[in-house]
Amino acid sequence: VQLSKKHEVAVWEFDRAQVTLVARDRTNAKFLPGIRIPDNVIFLDSLQEVMDFSDVVIFAVPSHVLRQVSAKAGAAGTAGKHLVSLVKGLEDRSYLRMTEVMASETKTCKSLSSLSGPSHAEEVARNVPTAVILATAQTDEAGFLQSELSTDTFRLYLNDDITGVELGGAVKNVIAIAAGICDGLGFGANTKAALLTRGMEEMKRLVAAMGGRESTITGLSGIGDLITTCISGFSRNRHVGEELGKGKKLREILGNMVMVAEGVNTTTSVHHLAVQKGLEMPITAAVHRILFGNADPAVEVVQLMARPFKREFE
Amino acid sequence: VQLSKKHEVAVWEFDRAQVTLVARDRTNAKFLPGIRIPDNVIFLDSLQEVMDFSDVVIFAVPSHVLRQVSAKAGAAGTAGKHLVSLVKGLEDRSYLRMTEVMASETKTCKSLSSLSGPSHAEEVARNVPTAVILATAQTDEAGFLQSELSTDTFRLYLNDDITGVELGGAVKNVIAIAAGICDGLGFGANTKAALLTRGMEEMKRLVAAMGGRESTITGLSGIGDLITTCISGFSRNRHVGEELGKGKKLREILGNMVMVAEGVNTTTSVHHLAVQKGLEMPITAAVHRILFGNADPAVEVVQLMARPFKREFE
Repeated sequence: VQLSKKHEVAVWEFDRAQVTLVARDRTNAKFLPGIRIPDNVIFLDSLQEVMDFSDVVIFAVPSHVLRQVSAKAGAAGTAGKHLVSLVKGLEDRSYLRMTEVMASETKTCKSLSSLSGPSHAEEVARNVPTAVILATAQTDEAGFLQSELSTDTFRLYLNDDITGVELGGAVKNVIAIAAGICDGLGFGANTKAALLTRGMEEMKRLVAAMGGRESTITGLSGIGDLITTCISGFSRNRHVGEELGKGKKLREILGNMVMVAEGVNTTTSVHHLAVQKGLEMPITAAVHRILFGNADPAVEVVQLMARPFKREFE
Repeated sequence: VQLSKKHEVAVWEFDRAQVTLVARDRTNAKFLPGIRIPDNVIFLDSLQEVMDFSDVVIFAVPSHVLRQVSAKAGAAGTAGKHLVSLVKGLEDRSYLRMTEVMASETKTCKSLSSLSGPSHAEEVARNVPTAVILATAQTDEAGFLQSELSTDTFRLYLNDDITGVELGGAVKNVIAIAAGICDGLGFGANTKAALLTRGMEEMKRLVAAMGGRESTITGLSGIGDLITTCISGFSRNRHVGEELGKGKKLREILGNMVMVAEGVNTTTSVHHLAVQKGLEMPITAAVHRILFGNADPAVEVVQLMARPFKREFE
């Protein structure tokens, strides 16, 4: 919606029935009801056509299909293209970041970036002032992308720590589930703020262990995105946590949702990565026990709050 | 309420009519409606009696009367006492921190501390799990205070950076006004999260310039408290901002409030301190213009979001 102010935008979407409806009605009744899609957004029939149409290709897909979509894009030809990921997560088992998955399936490209930050689509589409981070492995190309993708109300800022930006975007969905659990238990703002603050420390620990910068986690793509996810009614991950806190079972919650809650799969990856690296990530471990080990949410949150640490920063 | 689980607590309060009602009804209908005050909380007639009663004296007063209350306490005798401040703000004109004001009016004491963090009283009184920071100038005494003041659901953690803890607690009320302005303008979670994240950078800048540690601002007494203040319906400062965002005038908003919004006076102190120290604090400056310069809230927020900085961290 925003981008289209400056550019012709071509869209390819896996679900043909869905895209036919959107193209006909010029609105996405399922995911963005009430928003008119501008005329200069066009819908094409194949990924090949979209790849041929533009030099800047934006990947906005669930994390579990990114590898196969990247392989298709690679086959269509990515030489000279700027590839941008909006995807949040870590690949199952390999624990690769999203741009690492894209890189492994596309032999060559002009740049590979991650765009991340506090930017619920429902608000971006209404032109609510929004500021996000663009992290590009090819730093020479970052300024070009920044000016091409920014609008008056959708501002991009640069950070060259792509590891920190992508890991922050992934782990915040785990902490968002924890925040939702607090809401579901009726624990209020004190508990939630404490969990978010301690959650930020877990994000920093993982980022540092993986070669990123802790300071990135204190920025828009770290705590900024975490705050939005935890206060907004739009977050699917917070919603999953809230339902868990109210006593529902994971299978039942996911069965009732139309969108993917990335945090559920990310919890497994982040928890295993933490164990493998010997990192203390107690909130992630608790969310993992609640999601997959049938642990009692109330007991877990009370235990988290009562952990015997004496000093705030060791 | 919490403290009283472990200790006899004696209260002195300036407003005699109010305290008579509270002592009679065993509830504070004005500020904590619905909460029963336990029997081991007693109300005494003078500050002198309270000072004689306990070795640990907790100051919970509006910032603008802290100097005169501290002087009274000093006259009553503070030798051997642990003095703890719950007060958030900076003194007008002197820009002194709250424990600095207390120190200047009490010749001697055993320890001087600030207790700060995400802890709205309305939730603490309902035993919602809460974690806060105790910063003590006399670090040898911190462990004693930590164990005396902690309960199962009200946990104290130690941080020896009292400058960072007190400045964080003061400036967060300024940023909370900005967050409220966003709410009043209907800008949603994206804008608010961006403002909180950039607001944290302003808090860090001031703390560093005043000799504190930036890391303290990433903890419970910094971003933690800021998050609670900005998401909770209980925050007076966020409320002031929200009413400003809706177009009301400051005089009218303050006239309708029973409690003090510390952020209003703090904005003046922090803004002048920033100017004096040559610090870039654009959110504080914008809140100052809106509060005292009749600036248009919508124009100011849009300008803040459109500031021409390219990289997230310079």
